[in-house]
Parts: sequence; C-alpha cells; structure tokens
Amino acid sequence: MNKKIIIYADNSATTRMHNEVFDAMVPYLKENYGNASSIYSLGREAALTIKQARKDIAECINAEENEIFFTSGGSESDNWALKSGVLLTPNKNHIVTSAIEHHAVLHTVQSLVKKGFSASYVGVDNFGLVSTESVIAAINNKTSIVSIMMANNEIGTIEPIAKIAKVCREKGVLFHTDAVQAVGHIKVDVKELGIDMLSLSAHKFRGPKGVGALFIKKGINLPVFIEGGAQENSMRAGTENVAGIFGMAKALKIATNNLKINTNKILKLRNRLMENILKFDNTRLTGHPEKRLPGSASFCFEGVEGESMILDLNMHGICASSGSACTSKSLEASHVLLAIGLPHEIAHGSLRITLSEENTEKEIDYIISVLKSIIDRLRLMSPLWEKIIKKAVYH
Amino acid sequence: MNKKIIIYADNSATTRMHNEVFDAMVPYLKENYGNASSIYSLGREAALTIKQARKDIAECINAEENEIFFTSGGSESDNWALKSGVLLTPNKNHIVTSAIEHHAVLHTVQSLVKKGFSASYVGVDNFGLVSTESVIAAINNKTSIVSIMMANNEIGTIEPIAKIAKVCREKGVLFHTDAVQAVGHIKVDVKELGIDMLSLSAHKFRGPKGVGALFIKKGINLPVFIEGGAQENSMRAGTENVAGIFGMAKALKIATNNLKINTNKILKLRNRLMENILKFDNTRLTGHPEKRLPGSASFCFEGVEGESMILDLNMHGICASSGSACTSKSLEASHVLLAIGLPHEIAHGSLRITLSEENTEKEIDYIISVLKSIIDRLRLMSPLWEKIIKKAVYH
Repeated sequence: MNKKIIIYADNSATTRMHNEVFDAMVPYLKENYGNASSIYSLGREAALTIKQARKDIAECINAEENEIFFTSGGSESDNWALKSGVLLTPNKNHIVTSAIEHHAVLHTVQSLVKKGFSASYVGVDNFGLVSTESVIAAINNKTSIVSIMMANNEIGTIEPIAKIAKVCREKGVLFHTDAVQAVGHIKVDVKELGIDMLSLSAHKFRGPKGVGALFIKKGINLPVFIEGGAQENSMRAGTENVAGIFGMAKALKIATNNLKINTNKILKLRNRLMENILKFDNTRLTGHPEKRLPGSASFCFEGVEGESMILDLNMHGICASSGSACTSKSLEASHVLLAIGLPHEIAHGSLRITLSEENTEKEIDYIISVLKSIIDRLRLMSPLWEKIIKKAVYH
Repeated sequence: MNKKIIIYADNSATTRMHNEVFDAMVPYLKENYGNASSIYSLGREAALTIKQARKDIAECINAEENEIFFTSGGSESDNWALKSGVLLTPNKNHIVTSAIEHHAVLHTVQSLVKKGFSASYVGVDNFGLVSTESVIAAINNKTSIVSIMMANNEIGTIEPIAKIAKVCREKGVLFHTDAVQAVGHIKVDVKELGIDMLSLSAHKFRGPKGVGALFIKKGINLPVFIEGGAQENSMRAGTENVAGIFGMAKALKIATNNLKINTNKILKLRNRLMENILKFDNTRLTGHPEKRLPGSASFCFEGVEGESMILDLNMHGICASSGSACTSKSLEASHVLLAIGLPHEIAHGSLRITLSEENTEKEIDYIISVLKSIIDRLRLMSPLWEKIIKKAVYH
C-alpha cells in the first residue's frame, strides 16, 4: 500500500498525524512512561506534561485550564455530555438536538429516549442550517439540554452556534456542541460563542486517534461518566494517555497557529475543486455554499451509486467517502442528506471530499479528471441514469 | 530526568512500553493512518489490522474473536461491564463486589447505589483473599452481577476466580472480573475460569496507555456504554485507535509467549527482595505469601510514613509506590490495607514494589540497601517509632 501514490481527500474521516506531533509523542511512548498519578519524578513529569497540554488546549479554544477534561475521543465526549448533562436537572426530561447530528449524539439521545426521556429533532433547511427559531420552538419548560453540532461532518455546513447558545442561555437550558469537525479547522472561542460544553477529537486535526476532550464551563457540575481514580480532577477515571494528550495539544497548537495560512491554502484548493465538479451534468453541491468548513466539498451526482464511486476512486489512489466514515459500511442513505431534503436515489450518489493543507493543486486536478471519467462510466452502466436522461429528453 | 539512572519498580502503576510494541505502532501513527470504517484500501487495511489484533488478544486469553471489545482502558471496561451489566436484569438491583476492588469498580458500584441499586462488599482475610463462601452468602435473589478482581493492585493477592465464577454460574448471576493486574502476568483462560466479562488494560503489560478491552462472553447482550458509530460490532463507538489496539495486541502476545521465562526471572528477583526486606525490624508482608502476582512485593513498615519513603526512594532514583498509583495523591490510608485488617497507622507505612523482567539482581540489591537506610533514617525522626520502641522495651 505504501508504495502506491495515495491522494488523501477524506480529512473529515481522519487525518494524517503531523510529523511534529509524532516527534512530540515519541518520548512519552518510550522513556517518559511514568503514571501521571505517581508521586516520584517520572510520574510528576507526566503530570506536568498533562497540565501543560491542558493549558495549551484551553488557550486554543479560549477556555480555562480547569474547563478541559481529557477523554478517549469525540464519541465519549458526546456520550458524557449528554448522558450526564440530563442528570443535572432531575425534574426535566426533554432533549433538543438536530436531525443532522453525528450518530454519537443521535444514538445517545435515542438511548436516553428509551430510558424515558423525550427528544425533539429540529430540522434543517436545504443547506443543512439549523434555524435559531426552530430551536426556540423546540425548547419547552421540560427541556434539560440542547445539543447542536458546530459543523456537519458530511456536508460541512457551519451552524449558527453563538445564536443558538444565546437562546439556550436566555431559556436557562444547558447547551452542548459537538465541535469534532470544527476545532482546528475554524476559529472556536468558547467564551465568545457562549458554549456550556464542547466535544473535540484529536485525530480530526492531525493529532493521534483515541484521544479527545470535553470542555465543561466552570460552574457546571457534570456527573462523572467513567468513574474510578482521581484523574482529571476526579471527573474522568483512567490512567492518562500521556503521549496521546501531549500529541493532541501539539496538533491543536499547530492547527491554531497556522489556521489563517492553512485556511487560505485549503479554500483555494477547495474552490477550484468545487467549481470544476459543479460543471458536471446533473450534479449538485450539498451543504451551504459559503457557511461551510474550508476543506469540505460534498456533492450528489444523479444516476451514480456512491459506493461504486468510492471504490473506483480508490483504484486510482484517491481516498474519499460517501457520507460519513462511521456509517460508510451501511447501505442506508445518509440521514443528513435526507434531512436536507434530497430524495433517496440522489442521496445514494453522494461524495464527500475533504481537503487538508497537505493537498496540492495537482492533486485537485487529478481528482477532477478521474472523477469525471468514473462518473461517465458509472452512468453508462446505470439503469437509473438511463431513466434520468429519457426524462430530460421527453419532458 | 532521562540522564539520571532510574530503577523502575512500580510496574503495577504502569510499565515501560516494549521496544517491539513501539516499533509495531509507528506505521499506524505515521503512514497507515486510515479510518478503519472507510471502505478504501487505507481504511480496509486499518480494519484488517484491528481484526488481527482482536484475534491475537482473544487467543491470549482463550476467548473468541467476537468476544473482545476495544475500549480506552481498564476503567472504561469496568464502568461498562457494571453500569451496563446491571441493566440486563431489570427486575434485579443488587451488586456483589469485594472491599478491595480498584476504585474503577468501587466508585462505579457506589454511583449505582446512588441510583437505587444496593451493594454487598464481601470482606477478605488477612491475606486479601475473598472466600467463595462469603460470595455465596452475599448473593441473594435480587443479585444482578458479581464483580471480583482477578489480582489485587496493591497487595498482589490472586483471587480464586474459577471458584467464584462457578458459584455465580450456578446461581445464574453475571460474573465480571477486573483482570487489569493479571492479564499478561499470569495465565488467564476465560473459558477455563468460566468468566462472563473481563477487563484488561494495555499499559499494565507493556503496551500503550489509553487502550484496553472488555471481554464479553458470547450470548451476553451487554447494552452499549459509548454510543455512536458501528465500530466494535456497534458495541462501542469511536474511531478506532488503530496504533494503540495493534500495540496492545503486540504487547500481549509478547507477554504471553514469554510468560514462563519472565515469571521465573521475576519470581527469583521478587523472592530475593522479599526475603531481605522481611528481615527488617517491625516489617510485614501485605497480601498472600504465595497466591500473589509474580512481580508484586508489598510491605508495611511500622513507624514509617509511606509518602516520605516514596519521595526518599525517588531521590535515589527508585520508582515505587505506597498503595495504588490512582490514589497516591490522597492522604487517606488504602482501603485495601484497612480491609486486610491493618490499623491506620500501619497502613500508612506501606510500600509496593512491583517488578518486571527488565529489573536486575543488582537493582534489587540496591533497592534493599537504599530502603534499609531510608527506613532507619525515617524511624529516627518518627515520634510514632519512638512509641513503638518504648512499648517493646517496657512490655
């Protein structure tokens, strides 16, 4: 595999770890292996490393050091925020979320519904935008928590989090955001946005897999989700993944320090890709044309089956996805694409290309040309495409 | 720190990652970074790596491949087993555990008690052994789950798990064991032992931190703890920590393949250490003299304060602990040492030395000689020691 040229264009699924992140992690995987809870030097140094990482991550999202709690990733953070969040108001049993959340939120809400909670799933417009009005309408006097993602993983749409958070504050309802796709990719300032809880994941911003964090605003006494030792201020048990935590902090610092320059580079590539692909016949952009993550380009091609397209792209060394990675093995149409109003047969022809600062203009042009030939070929073999063409001719 | 000589003798807290484990992880931290849920080659290779790791880990504990579920570590595994385990029998609300469990079990049980469950904490004898009879006596017709650790983290005592599991099977009660200290250090055969669920953690057997597993016997439909994607057969969401999982499998294979040779080596060192330290005045072994983990030596020294001893040892480059790492920052006496009947003032003078195959005879002799001088010095300054001596003289 490593000998083949790979054009990696699935950065919303995961990212290539930054070389500097790897280098930063190595000492903690090798000689500095102390348990951060131990009181001898080897342990204290691990504890200091974690303290510094916490400070660095806090700074990157304008939080306080003691508002950052390390977890095993975005899914754990989402589960913790929601399952423990609803316990804060025992007399309330209603949750508000959106129809386009990641399954880490949706499945968690569904499990709470099975336990007796009720939930409202606010819809989105054709661009995947949640309206503040729909959140206001969904909140009632039994609402315990609102969870709306910062940016969608499939279509890249960036939600109006500051406005939604403000509404929640005014209504006295806890507000959580799954910012797994946003942190490291757009400016995230928890104070400015007025967020109560925020989930983030290292491997989405070129850090290691298996580590993430939950931001919990000071004053919110979130019940513990994983109980045991005194780690994370007794809020999350488990021997700390020192290398992972340090790597995450390093990755977020790099991403934050280079945000402007990377965004400019990525936007240029992304726009080139989008402009050219949207010239294809019977092709539409999914998600918002402007309010979207810089690296995210997502499309639906009529008369094409998403999975075949991905496998054909793979044959040409291109990594891209149809829908989110987490559900890519499922044959169901994406809940996100259905929520923005696409019919099933069109939702099945979806493609998500998500770029990083490592991609090049040459790669973009290669993707465009390969994709064109794949789509032409797949359409030639597609009975659905035949119907679409006939329709266009006869009507 | 790295320039100083370090004698690492706290292997129950964490271990130095095996060089071969590091080497095995590197490709997954660097070039093979695909998301295991992605359907292109880079993703499929990650999925195959995880599949192989699952098979290897299953083999090491004589489980089936589909009975191994990867988690972020022992604490998550314990929380999952207990919090989800009790949901399997909605008409039962009683938990049986022991007084000497790790806090990942004890705190989890306490949180369930707050939610309306009841719990029985079976006591142990002076060696830290749980008796099967006490488990039988504790089980009632409302008992949902029994959780008894395989080996204690502070005093090394190995519990009669096969007998306890048999009792649970006969009574139709789910049996979970926290085997975090046992796996990789003694033979663990889940079929022979008749276990329903077992927690393990990679960093305790020279694998990476931040990754572990829960063994769930086929047929047990344990409710999901972390919900979201389809990972781990839809049983535990979150993008897989491929490098960590692969490193864990590698570490467990190395430990299992070398179990006999390492055990012999470690036992020889451990016995030399124990024999010599037990010659010190007013010194006792804690835990069972034979039924204990090979690397584990634990003591109480009258008239000595544990924390001072650890810090003095640290000054001499020796890493050891007083009680478990997870509670080492707490000033309370260890619940394990109190449970085996030691009075508070003696429990405060505890030392845990846990060896690995990397320790040498020279290191053992150095530890013995340094420890002797530290204890003599601390006792000279100790008003408690003065009292003990006077008592010995006058009575």
